[in-house]
Amino acid sequence: MKKPKFAVAGLGRIGKIHLGNICQMEGVQVVAAMDPLEEGRQYARNKNIPYIASNFEEMLTMTPIDAIVICSPTDTHADYVEMAAKAGIHVFCEKPLDLSLERVVEVLDIVNKAGVKLMLGFNRRFDKEFRKVKDLVKTGAVGQPHLVKITSRDPGAPPISYIEKSGGLFLDMTIHDFDVARFVVDKEVEEVYAKGAVLIDEAIGRSGDIDTAVVTLTYSDGTMAVIDNSREASYGYDQRVEVFGSKGMVQSNNNFMDSHKLYNDKGIHAALPLHFFLERYREAYKNEICDFAKSLENDDKTPVDGNDGLQSLKIGLAAIKSLRENRPVKITEIF
Amino acid sequence: MKKPKFAVAGLGRIGKIHLGNICQMEGVQVVAAMDPLEEGRQYARNKNIPYIASNFEEMLTMTPIDAIVICSPTDTHADYVEMAAKAGIHVFCEKPLDLSLERVVEVLDIVNKAGVKLMLGFNRRFDKEFRKVKDLVKTGAVGQPHLVKITSRDPGAPPISYIEKSGGLFLDMTIHDFDVARFVVDKEVEEVYAKGAVLIDEAIGRSGDIDTAVVTLTYSDGTMAVIDNSREASYGYDQRVEVFGSKGMVQSNNNFMDSHKLYNDKGIHAALPLHFFLERYREAYKNEICDFAKSLENDDKTPVDGNDGLQSLKIGLAAIKSLRENRPVKITEIF
Amino acid sequence: MKKPKFAVAGLGRIGKIHLGNICQMEGVQVVAAMDPLEEGRQYARNKNIPYIASNFEEMLTMTPIDAIVICSPTDTHADYVEMAAKAGIHVFCEKPLDLSLERVVEVLDIVNKAGVKLMLGFNRRFDKEFRKVKDLVKTGAVGQPHLVKITSRDPGAPPISYIEKSGGLFLDMTIHDFDVARFVVDKEVEEVYAKGAVLIDEAIGRSGDIDTAVVTLTYSDGTMAVIDNSREASYGYDQRVEVFGSKGMVQSNNNFMDSHKLYNDKGIHAALPLHFFLERYREAYKNEICDFAKSLENDDKTPVDGNDGLQSLKIGLAAIKSLRENRPVKITEIF
Amino acid sequence: MKKPKFAVAGLGRIGKIHLGNICQMEGVQVVAAMDPLEEGRQYARNKNIPYIASNFEEMLTMTPIDAIVICSPTDTHADYVEMAAKAGIHVFCEKPLDLSLERVVEVLDIVNKAGVKLMLGFNRRFDKEFRKVKDLVKTGAVGQPHLVKITSRDPGAPPISYIEKSGGLFLDMTIHDFDVARFVVDKEVEEVYAKGAVLIDEAIGRSGDIDTAVVTLTYSDGTMAVIDNSREASYGYDQRVEVFGSKGMVQSNNNFMDSHKLYNDKGIHAALPLHFFLERYREAYKNEICDFAKSLENDDKTPVDGNDGLQSLKIGLAAIKSLRENRPVKITEIF
Repeated sequence: MKKPKFAVAGLGRIGKIHLGNICQMEGVQVVAAMDPLEEGRQYARNKNIPYIASNFEEMLTMTPIDAIVICSPTDTHADYVEMAAKAGIHVFCEKPLDLSLERVVEVLDIVNKAGVKLMLGFNRRFDKEFRKVKDLVKTGAVGQPHLVKITSRDPGAPPISYIEKSGGLFLDMTIHDFDVARFVVDKEVEEVYAKGAVLIDEAIGRSGDIDTAVVTLTYSDGTMAVIDNSREASYGYDQRVEVFGSKGMVQSNNNFMDSHKLYNDKGIHAALPLHFFLERYREAYKNEICDFAKSLENDDKTPVDGNDGLQSLKIGLAAIKSLRENRPVKITEIF
Repeated sequence: MKKPKFAVAGLGRIGKIHLGNICQMEGVQVVAAMDPLEEGRQYARNKNIPYIASNFEEMLTMTPIDAIVICSPTDTHADYVEMAAKAGIHVFCEKPLDLSLERVVEVLDIVNKAGVKLMLGFNRRFDKEFRKVKDLVKTGAVGQPHLVKITSRDPGAPPISYIEKSGGLFLDMTIHDFDVARFVVDKEVEEVYAKGAVLIDEAIGRSGDIDTAVVTLTYSDGTMAVIDNSREASYGYDQRVEVFGSKGMVQSNNNFMDSHKLYNDKGIHAALPLHFFLERYREAYKNEICDFAKSLENDDKTPVDGNDGLQSLKIGLAAIKSLRENRPVKITEIF
Repeated sequence: MKKPKFAVAGLGRIGKIHLGNICQMEGVQVVAAMDPLEEGRQYARNKNIPYIASNFEEMLTMTPIDAIVICSPTDTHADYVEMAAKAGIHVFCEKPLDLSLERVVEVLDIVNKAGVKLMLGFNRRFDKEFRKVKDLVKTGAVGQPHLVKITSRDPGAPPISYIEKSGGLFLDMTIHDFDVARFVVDKEVEEVYAKGAVLIDEAIGRSGDIDTAVVTLTYSDGTMAVIDNSREASYGYDQRVEVFGSKGMVQSNNNFMDSHKLYNDKGIHAALPLHFFLERYREAYKNEICDFAKSLENDDKTPVDGNDGLQSLKIGLAAIKSLRENRPVKITEIF
Repeated sequence: MKKPKFAVAGLGRIGKIHLGNICQMEGVQVVAAMDPLEEGRQYARNKNIPYIASNFEEMLTMTPIDAIVICSPTDTHADYVEMAAKAGIHVFCEKPLDLSLERVVEVLDIVNKAGVKLMLGFNRRFDKEFRKVKDLVKTGAVGQPHLVKITSRDPGAPPISYIEKSGGLFLDMTIHDFDVARFVVDKEVEEVYAKGAVLIDEAIGRSGDIDTAVVTLTYSDGTMAVIDNSREASYGYDQRVEVFGSKGMVQSNNNFMDSHKLYNDKGIHAALPLHFFLERYREAYKNEICDFAKSLENDDKTPVDGNDGLQSLKIGLAAIKSLRENRPVKITEIF
């Protein structure tokens, strides 16, 4: 595809990042943007986007579009993807596609029939750290992978109102880790055991969610992964992965604000991790949209697809069930 | 107690280490040693130990003894402790006291009635790394502990013959980690979920054991620990612990052969961890026997006691049950 | 100054970087660019720069310009700065202003009389690592600074043709370190002792230069700095600084390609430093031009000025004299 | 030599360490010890040393001795070595042999004629870190060495009374670094340039010494080393070395009290280096005396000999001259 025409739907925090990144890419043009709020539309005007709409359907009618980047609220994702697919437009959609497994399956079916590409925004796959771990595992540097360990902690919990709509810890936060668990070793998960607690904020508990968790995954070959989560790490965003195998082990660490070490009579002091995902994954956001554009250009498979979203959602739903019933749950029990 | 008279029972690998360490301590004398093998007795003779026996009962009759360090095979531990206790002698015993919970309870009862001190050789508690983590947690440096993560991997599996008698991975190897999990946060474990696999050596599987495991522990306050184990890490002994809490996180790392970093056009290269427990815990072995002697001198509680052994054994038995039944098991289900 | 009009002179490697960075800045517009080569001008056309010239004087006549960024070859710097200053235009100029001390003094005088701002491209001052070290020193974190240590090694030597025109190691490469030595502790250098050798490429020696050096600087308060240089580090770009003082020490390290650690039976392996200055100082280039624009906007002093260039040049000339005469040389001996 | 008979002369801090270490060695017996103070002699009695003297000559007459370890005050070293050599006894002597070059040459001549072995206590050569660096350099891991960097800082200055007798910073402290500079690359030093200052304690200046220094060494092949020293590092003992060469670079780091990292909202905090030489070089002291005994057993060259002491002393004297005259000084100018 020669210089594909892009549109961006939803110009909140993440939409602005995508819009900025696409504007800097060579071989791509942004022809349209939409946001229900004037503030978002004004942002697009400042970027000289030719067509600016206040709703999704309107945008589709204004100008020919090859690909849409969907960054609107989660509850609009499925509908927008469906509309785009039916209009023959390729889609990059922020995760999750939907919190309902049935609706996800339905939309993936529509996308499939429409023959358009769908990529989901599992941004960590495009971070240099996770990529390096995956590459080393793939080339056999650790031999046969036996254990995957993922630490994933946020610097602070989102508002309760967000948690209530997000599907909770497992569907909103751990879902990235479920994807990483599949990604780094290229294996499917068969069983989930989730243990969780409310240790940070009782309001989270009252909303029916947890804020701290340990999740054990069993892959279909009997090897294991373990994820630990917290909604609030006092020292910032903690994003580490380790793959242990028959011939070695590879770890990736956080990215830090700087490398300084200060030695004094109290000890040695160093800088904290980059505060949160916007800082840590800044380059990953560029890489992912760039790779999406490349897959359009070369008419290739997208590096993350609808099935990846589906599998992570299933693992998340199994984790929720496991937590409630305090027992290991097979993925086949879901759906 | 003025210059307590020590005896060492069993002069295999670990017995020799204890004997060497005790000989270097001030304020302690080694009056007796016993080993069924001539090689062990010759070792004691070279160290100028006055009384040398070839069996335990014989040794008890040769000379007055204040404290015995028991390093003989596991299946003799309970009997020797019982004999020593009945003779009014304090005991330092390598773990485990016994693999049978009933027998452990019985022996602890005898020790209790005899009024002698009993210390178990959970050596990691005396390693500077684990101690530092515990101290920082105790002083509140991480706030309320929410999650404990323990990585514990051996450089290579022991012979199958050993595995068969040792009680298997959970009672032989993970039992140290169960103790660490209790030690670093000073909490009791309430529930165990163990997942394991045979990934290293099928002979281990045929002997009824596993070689790779992920174990989730739930403490009585609802917080969690997770342990990952492997019988064979290609890069050597891997012994790390991390405690995450409301105000921070503390990690301890492996100890390495040296600190060098070699930079060349292939990357940066550094030395491996100290190969195994004899290297890693060399100082810990000194510290533990020294602390045992101090508790005799000051007539204090020993820093690890019979109950610590009992609790770890219960967790281990719960882990075995959990693995077999693939479900979380409460500690109260054991015994 | 409201939305200053920028021009970029010279669109080689570094000119393209500056142009790209300025185009992304808010509150600034690029109105003109010039390059004697068609390739450079085409680059500017693709960026939609309104006025594009093939020589510097021509560009000055095409459209009103508030500030020029000079990235042309070194031997044009002084003339272009002079022309810009006489035209009342603020200047950001890549270092060095000139290799002749007399010419530098002359140009600085012209700039001064013209009342325009002049900033020199000592990019390391805008790198987060060097900045952090300076900030910590400034706030007293290390007490009184006693020793500064700078390691500065390139991944490979430039072509001999470049070395011959560049002024050699001390004026081309170490000059950055001289600036860092002044920057991190905010002190002037009084004496220089330089020791060097040709260890990498004899052709460098034949061209009259060296490729390896150790330079000791003495500040006016008697404290010291030491710089070590090599034109060819097999492992890539090595840029470290350490400040030791009465109350502590601060170090900054290289920036690495990623944080992975691979453990196997051979050792632990990690990624190399970012290869060279374009990778390492990518953000620094953004920061410096941004800070230049801010100093225009607020009519402030520029964060690096002509005198900074002058002082570093003097230190460099003293280093050359010291190397030739194998003795410490006072800065006052220069000029 | 079968089970050589050792004597230890001088039972101050370092003498006690050596005595303790020798007592633990297999294949060696300590037959005599001497100290002018009762406290030292009592220490020897507690260790069951058979012959205990209050002066050196007396000790030589009491019992046959194969090797003497001399740990008495510096001003006795040369005389004791002379007496021992004339008595046909091998000698391990703490450095320096003497502060007078003439006397050192004289004593080495006597030792030579007597045909006994002499080893000097350059303990760092037996530290695992320095040894690893040397080994990697020797095996070509960094190619041809171009630059050696040594950081050597003490946690606090010794008393002025000590400094006055010790020969000052270069002969008392830096002399170890001069030896390391020769050791790690196995090259001789040809020229020295020393720059120093009094930044820590004016009393040190009044005693005619300095407390902070940067010393550039030029080896006979034109390659360079640089040493930086301070008498007082607030964060403890700082002992690092780096060798940069044509194919790579190797660094060794300090040894730390433990490996913990504490993350909290202020940053990441780690433990300090081991406080001083007794902690850092504890194992090195064992290794060196062990290697001395091995060279007796195998009738080999000692791993450090009299010439090593002589060369370091010459470099130290050249450094003193260089500092006074503020110019590079050739080693050939000394003596």
